[in-house]
Amino acid sequence: MESLHSSVEAYGSGSLREQKWSPGEKSVARKAFDGALERELDSITQEVKRRASGIKAPSELWELEEYLSDCRKEINSKYDYRYSMLLIVFGQLVRQGWLGIDELRGLSEDKVASIQLVADFGKKRE
Amino acid sequence: MESLHSSVEAYGSGSLREQKWSPGEKSVARKAFDGALERELDSITQEVKRRASGIKAPSELWELEEYLSDCRKEINSKYDYRYSMLLIVFGQLVRQGWLGIDELRGLSEDKVASIQLVADFGKKRE
Repeated sequence: MESLHSSVEAYGSGSLREQKWSPGEKSVARKAFDGALERELDSITQEVKRRASGIKAPSELWELEEYLSDCRKEINSKYDYRYSMLLIVFGQLVRQGWLGIDELRGLSEDKVASIQLVADFGKKRE
Repeated sequence: MESLHSSVEAYGSGSLREQKWSPGEKSVARKAFDGALERELDSITQEVKRRASGIKAPSELWELEEYLSDCRKEINSKYDYRYSMLLIVFGQLVRQGWLGIDELRGLSEDKVASIQLVADFGKKRE
């Protein structure tokens, strides 16, 4: 656990945030980011269709509104495409299953390791 | 038009707000109010099902959220079951088609006339 803590602390202190991204890595990152976002939005869409088609009581209308509002807030806060944030963002997406670690092929080994670390660290905290 | 203005002004000044409601009238009012609310909620539910089933782009998710939010605010502000407000509420519901004037049979003639006046006044302003 010590190594996990050290790495996450290193991220907070800036050493991971300041990593350089090559043009090739930026292309991989953009594709991975967009793919995860599309998958998560598709999943929300299916859930909204499922919930809407089953509405029987008015209270379920407002529950659907709340669900959509929560989703929008989460999507907006989670999908932060700043290079200084991407390792954390990708780590979270891998942990939640919206992104496969294999989609990050092309990123440097240390970046992938950091992303995997964030994903595993999040799992242990859940 | 003068009579419409006078009546609506009379409402604002309190003479219509302070009308007494007999037990029989309260029963008619409750049934009319609940019936209109149920119809309007049913209509919203059908519209939500229609919109949800047709969602193709993520932007339509947030449009559905906005639609639901607007509906909830309108329902909450419009369905005000205070006797001091009911003539205005019923007038608005008749104008919008959620309530038939025949459902108000059992209310005093002057109440029904006031409700009809509010309904017609609203129509002319639209």
